Amino acid sequence: MYDPFVIQRLIDTWLAEDIGACDLTAQVMIEPDEVGAFHMNARESIVIAGIDVAAAVFKRYDPSLEVSALVRDGARVEKGARLLDVRGAARSILTTERTALNIIQRMSGIATETARYVEAIRGTHARLIDTRKTTPGLRMLEKHASSCGGALNHRLGLDGGVMIKDNHIAVCGGIAKAVERARRLLPVLTKLEVECDRLDQVREAVAANVDVIMLDNMSVPDMAEAVKLVAGRAKLEASGGIRMETIRPIAETGVDYISTSRPQQSAPAVDIGLDES
Amino acid sequence: MYDPFVIQRLIDTWLAEDIGACDLTAQVMIEPDEVGAFHMNARESIVIAGIDVAAAVFKRYDPSLEVSALVRDGARVEKGARLLDVRGAARSILTTERTALNIIQRMSGIATETARYVEAIRGTHARLIDTRKTTPGLRMLEKHASSCGGALNHRLGLDGGVMIKDNHIAVCGGIAKAVERARRLLPVLTKLEVECDRLDQVREAVAANVDVIMLDNMSVPDMAEAVKLVAGRAKLEASGGIRMETIRPIAETGVDYISTSRPQQSAPAVDIGLDES
Amino acid sequence: MYDPFVIQRLIDTWLAEDIGACDLTAQVMIEPDEVGAFHMNARESIVIAGIDVAAAVFKRYDPSLEVSALVRDGARVEKGARLLDVRGAARSILTTERTALNIIQRMSGIATETARYVEAIRGTHARLIDTRKTTPGLRMLEKHASSCGGALNHRLGLDGGVMIKDNHIAVCGGIAKAVERARRLLPVLTKLEVECDRLDQVREAVAANVDVIMLDNMSVPDMAEAVKLVAGRAKLEASGGIRMETIRPIAETGVDYISTSRPQQSAPAVDIGLDES
Amino acid sequence: MYDPFVIQRLIDTWLAEDIGACDLTAQVMIEPDEVGAFHMNARESIVIAGIDVAAAVFKRYDPSLEVSALVRDGARVEKGARLLDVRGAARSILTTERTALNIIQRMSGIATETARYVEAIRGTHARLIDTRKTTPGLRMLEKHASSCGGALNHRLGLDGGVMIKDNHIAVCGGIAKAVERARRLLPVLTKLEVECDRLDQVREAVAANVDVIMLDNMSVPDMAEAVKLVAGRAKLEASGGIRMETIRPIAETGVDYISTSRPQQSAPAVDIGLDES
Amino acid sequence: MYDPFVIQRLIDTWLAEDIGACDLTAQVMIEPDEVGAFHMNARESIVIAGIDVAAAVFKRYDPSLEVSALVRDGARVEKGARLLDVRGAARSILTTERTALNIIQRMSGIATETARYVEAIRGTHARLIDTRKTTPGLRMLEKHASSCGGALNHRLGLDGGVMIKDNHIAVCGGIAKAVERARRLLPVLTKLEVECDRLDQVREAVAANVDVIMLDNMSVPDMAEAVKLVAGRAKLEASGGIRMETIRPIAETGVDYISTSRPQQSAPAVDIGLDES
Amino acid sequence: MYDPFVIQRLIDTWLAEDIGACDLTAQVMIEPDEVGAFHMNARESIVIAGIDVAAAVFKRYDPSLEVSALVRDGARVEKGARLLDVRGAARSILTTERTALNIIQRMSGIATETARYVEAIRGTHARLIDTRKTTPGLRMLEKHASSCGGALNHRLGLDGGVMIKDNHIAVCGGIAKAVERARRLLPVLTKLEVECDRLDQVREAVAANVDVIMLDNMSVPDMAEAVKLVAGRAKLEASGGIRMETIRPIAETGVDYISTSRPQQSAPAVDIGLDES
Repeated sequence: MYDPFVIQRLIDTWLAEDIGACDLTAQVMIEPDEVGAFHMNARESIVIAGIDVAAAVFKRYDPSLEVSALVRDGARVEKGARLLDVRGAARSILTTERTALNIIQRMSGIATETARYVEAIRGTHARLIDTRKTTPGLRMLEKHASSCGGALNHRLGLDGGVMIKDNHIAVCGGIAKAVERARRLLPVLTKLEVECDRLDQVREAVAANVDVIMLDNMSVPDMAEAVKLVAGRAKLEASGGIRMETIRPIAETGVDYISTSRPQQSAPAVDIGLDES
Repeated sequence: MYDPFVIQRLIDTWLAEDIGACDLTAQVMIEPDEVGAFHMNARESIVIAGIDVAAAVFKRYDPSLEVSALVRDGARVEKGARLLDVRGAARSILTTERTALNIIQRMSGIATETARYVEAIRGTHARLIDTRKTTPGLRMLEKHASSCGGALNHRLGLDGGVMIKDNHIAVCGGIAKAVERARRLLPVLTKLEVECDRLDQVREAVAANVDVIMLDNMSVPDMAEAVKLVAGRAKLEASGGIRMETIRPIAETGVDYISTSRPQQSAPAVDIGLDES
Repeated sequence: MYDPFVIQRLIDTWLAEDIGACDLTAQVMIEPDEVGAFHMNARESIVIAGIDVAAAVFKRYDPSLEVSALVRDGARVEKGARLLDVRGAARSILTTERTALNIIQRMSGIATETARYVEAIRGTHARLIDTRKTTPGLRMLEKHASSCGGALNHRLGLDGGVMIKDNHIAVCGGIAKAVERARRLLPVLTKLEVECDRLDQVREAVAANVDVIMLDNMSVPDMAEAVKLVAGRAKLEASGGIRMETIRPIAETGVDYISTSRPQQSAPAVDIGLDES
Repeated sequence: MYDPFVIQRLIDTWLAEDIGACDLTAQVMIEPDEVGAFHMNARESIVIAGIDVAAAVFKRYDPSLEVSALVRDGARVEKGARLLDVRGAARSILTTERTALNIIQRMSGIATETARYVEAIRGTHARLIDTRKTTPGLRMLEKHASSCGGALNHRLGLDGGVMIKDNHIAVCGGIAKAVERARRLLPVLTKLEVECDRLDQVREAVAANVDVIMLDNMSVPDMAEAVKLVAGRAKLEASGGIRMETIRPIAETGVDYISTSRPQQSAPAVDIGLDES
Repeated sequence: MYDPFVIQRLIDTWLAEDIGACDLTAQVMIEPDEVGAFHMNARESIVIAGIDVAAAVFKRYDPSLEVSALVRDGARVEKGARLLDVRGAARSILTTERTALNIIQRMSGIATETARYVEAIRGTHARLIDTRKTTPGLRMLEKHASSCGGALNHRLGLDGGVMIKDNHIAVCGGIAKAVERARRLLPVLTKLEVECDRLDQVREAVAANVDVIMLDNMSVPDMAEAVKLVAGRAKLEASGGIRMETIRPIAETGVDYISTSRPQQSAPAVDIGLDES
Repeated sequence: MYDPFVIQRLIDTWLAEDIGACDLTAQVMIEPDEVGAFHMNARESIVIAGIDVAAAVFKRYDPSLEVSALVRDGARVEKGARLLDVRGAARSILTTERTALNIIQRMSGIATETARYVEAIRGTHARLIDTRKTTPGLRMLEKHASSCGGALNHRLGLDGGVMIKDNHIAVCGGIAKAVERARRLLPVLTKLEVECDRLDQVREAVAANVDVIMLDNMSVPDMAEAVKLVAGRAKLEASGGIRMETIRPIAETGVDYISTSRPQQSAPAVDIGLDES
């Protein structure tokens, strides 16, 4: 989920960044009327994210290029899979290829890594969710890459929900009062989440009718206890130090969401190349 | 190396991206006149990159915040090191902290990983260099992070050098002709590099007086041979599939540069937190 | 609720729009070193919205101007109340005064009109809420003006909630299926609202566990019935053709929200002037 | 009168504002290949302004939409009139419809209200003119809406004319000297207007050969006297507190222009809807 | 006459253009804490234009620089005159000096050349005026440079006046009808000019009450005749192929304005340097 | 050499600058459906630069215009040559013609003047090169115009090379140390140039293995001596006070480059017109 119109402005800044004054090599080595045909292919098994963004990079720079995406975001492809065809002015393709590859490699890296975490909790009630720990400038595209890998998004930005934390609670004098304060101004389609470290806070939060309760760095038994005492009256999010090795037992406690920034913060770019057809 | 003035426009887009319409939590939970004091600290041993960028994020949003960087880019710090102090309007700090952390975590991740590769070739003649495989929108900051880790930059963008490749050579009818063509328009302070797969191409390139010769996916013995036959008349860049395990023998061949995108494309973000002082 | 940093970019475009190439009158008639002191005052009884925005207009154009706001947004002031002082370069003040007045007059107009509707339902359970029918370019400021008048905001933009309508329901084959589809991708802090025309739809929506149900153009008795059958399991929003004369009986049915665009779409600008001090 | 190219940048900011990160509803509920056909229609009798702007909103977001305007700006249409057809990707239409409606509703509101004032002085020599009291960001579109309603524009911005006021006159030592000062720098195709409160000032202004004289809050008999003594040597603009009830007697004094901000500052948005065809 | 706030955005684009990714020399050769003191001085006798713009270039990049302008725009200075002092971070000064010099050299070049033309018609009734033949991107600054040289501006842009030409007249069926058409929409503070090739057109134009009549490539005797027959009822602008050798006889015909693009289109940049103090 | 995509953003700002609020003349005098056919023609013998930029101005404003360039940049054309055809909406053509002409007149002026200098050194080893003394905002287009006239570009911006000057050398303690310092951070495809006033500095620079040596204001005999002692081990650039009368003897010394800003800073715009076809 991202808006293709809004993304065009981003693409403009990426291209300006790489091109600078001009692509010296393309300008001096390639005739303006030379044409070429190229295709992107996966050099390892990956989950695709950003195929339409890569296509848009080519089209935005030179609308006369013919570009066809051959896979859809979210698809798992094997090594060697052909992902996208582009043909037209060779200058345009060579000036833009690095930007197109850079973005799809990074997005697909996140999708592929996310899918590993999602796989690890398959069959449980829990859904993997992402965080706001994304690369500055790429928020929506990295959130979209998470979705492609099978995760849900938490909030898209600071305007997409309210998170009440320890110090808010302390300042207000308890969860109930903090929630009441937030509700005075909160847009009606926005949910409210409260961060809890202990089970007594969870109880308070349920009583205050919050939408989501974050179980912050709780032990697995405490999480299981929280699930029992909340009994569906709020959504429960397990958070803090989630790793591949620890994620399944957490998912089996019955929490609704498990949030982690790891796939976005540590996924390596995957290997995708552009070859002449 | 990056320009602090130019970076300000980037920061504006990052903040706009995370804030969206407004930071709902900060607006509903924090009084405008509440003040706070926080500090960033390293939660693992890392090489710092981006400390001034993180500081600029706070100052750009709210020039009345007092921000002091306590370390300099390029420094190696230990777990627990205090990196930056910020004090002032709590609303401003909480609205911007995620963006400040996201960028310094990513940049320091690259610097830290780069330093590992640089360490691996210490004592040899070779310098590690980076590539254009950077995150769209963060080119200069990721190049700067490379420098902080001890690498040299290759070119900053498509306007920072000419790279003559296989197909250019084929179209022009040989390296000498391709180089001659490039020289007709090349800005005089810009270098010219030629990609070579075989030793006979290296010979041709030296004869054509190119500035840098890329040894593309050559074997270690061939690289050593190339070093011998070039004998300092051009710079030699080893490139292609460089990994931690293979880098030292390559460095020992006597090449001038070893280029790799791995630290930029696969370094995980490092762990840096913001705590109340 | 709006972000003061984000608003600065808006102010830039307003000033550019009014100034064009330059303020001919200020440039030809006023010496650069002439200073002046002016104050804004209310020429009728109004609810203030935008006092900080008006102040920011002056400061953004010329940071050396001294500006003090004498009231706070949301305050009801009487005719003649002094709202803001500004002193400094006369050229700067005269070049910017119209823009500062235009925005505060419009925002306060909306706040004042909103307050009339809020007053009309005082003492009932219902809260007045606004819509996305705002002036293009002024969304957050007009939403903020609504808040100043005592209303809640509905959603801030298309990314702030999901609204399932008739045709979505038809395409998906019922409310339950439409909701299920939305939940597959919905960010976890975002609420979901369903538009219902009839009571049987309301029943379906409650069963599907939606967050908010819009009662679209329902009769007052049907709304009362909806309140009874929903019994607090979802929020109820009365919508459609709300007017001052009809709003109280609707509020008395027990609905949670009454939404109307009228204060934003038809409030006249209020009379605020700038006089020499 | 507005420039369609310049307006495109405005439309971009409107769409970005409403869409934010993305249109959640359209993305989750509508398939990318779903098509639809819709039409705008007037739900009351109105004067149209902004039909091409509304069309441009759709086309700017998605150039593949087919959009036909069925009326022209300035036309009076009756309730039920079909104004515009749009067909194509349903997602694109639903993401943009609110923005398209918001602008045409507001612009047509101004045109419709302006037409009432113009009607009130029909048959007299006077022309209604507008002011710079427009919504920040919408100057040219609201000026255009005034024209659609039959008014003339005063100046488009601060660069479109010089207005000499009381304090300028005082500082310079009389109207003649103030005018002389302005003429030293005034672009040659720009007119000069002087604000006069009294008839002796009017006499001075005529003697100084100004282009337009504003009769500021003068009584109707004084205005009539001004018309007589100026005798066509300058244009006369009646200004200050103009209302529907008082406008005709003013127009009958023989003044050239009557300026009022009321239609722009207080016209309610008119009712225009988008229905599925 | 230009707006200092609006100009700041221009300066940003100039600096971004010259700096590109970063000023390599300043970054590698100068320590961040090195300070310096420099001054601009005239290396020939010139009329100054752009001194505040040059100062703003330094301040915009680095607000901590201390900059003092020692002359005012419009002043004639002799070779060797000290124009501006700047002190502070040496990096900032060296990164921006070229941009600051480029703009003041160009603007002062125009002012100096304009002053020669103005001198050539001194003592006559005629005023020199400029045209829209300015460097794209520098309109207002080049218009301001003209003023500094003693010329008046014609119109600032396409929104600053109406020019009726041959083909408009042909299409409308005569000057009177063309003027009538223009008046239906013309903003009331905007003047209307008609281009005339022959004296009978001048007669028609006066009859139509136009504000300014352009005598397009007329002979000097015809211009003198035009002055006589218009007798002050409109302003007369001599235009077309004006050169230093022919300008005085034209000025002596009694026309009000003589327009020429030569000083803007052919003035060489003047010699101004920046030296260490 | 310039990037056509990047140039589009520049064109947008030029058009916005000239149009302002709107082209009053085109809007009031020309029907939206009126069509026209025009052509640009050279009114003197010139070297063309900017033909594609001029074409892009028309297409950017109105993509429905049909535009054909009839010559290529770098071509020498005679007086009367037809350069470009444009047909379509007359309004669009007339609104944009001035901007299209302004840029091609200026660029072709630089190309034509540059060609005169290039001609003056024809047959020698030396190449003419340009400088960073370009019009703010037009860097790449003026550099491209230089190329069209037969010159080479020096560096495109501050990121395109390092220039070590007197004061750097003094601070570092000699050329060798200054160069060593620069090499620690210099991107590997970027050259390094050292400014030398005396022959002993030239010797030091050669020893330090710099890429280019600037001979700053040296006498012709000293330049000849420098050529001899450098003997091809570095490129030599003659710089300082180059004029048409002095350039040939300098070229005959055997230097590689002669740099001058004169064609860019003093070339008058050439005469190109747009006529109805």
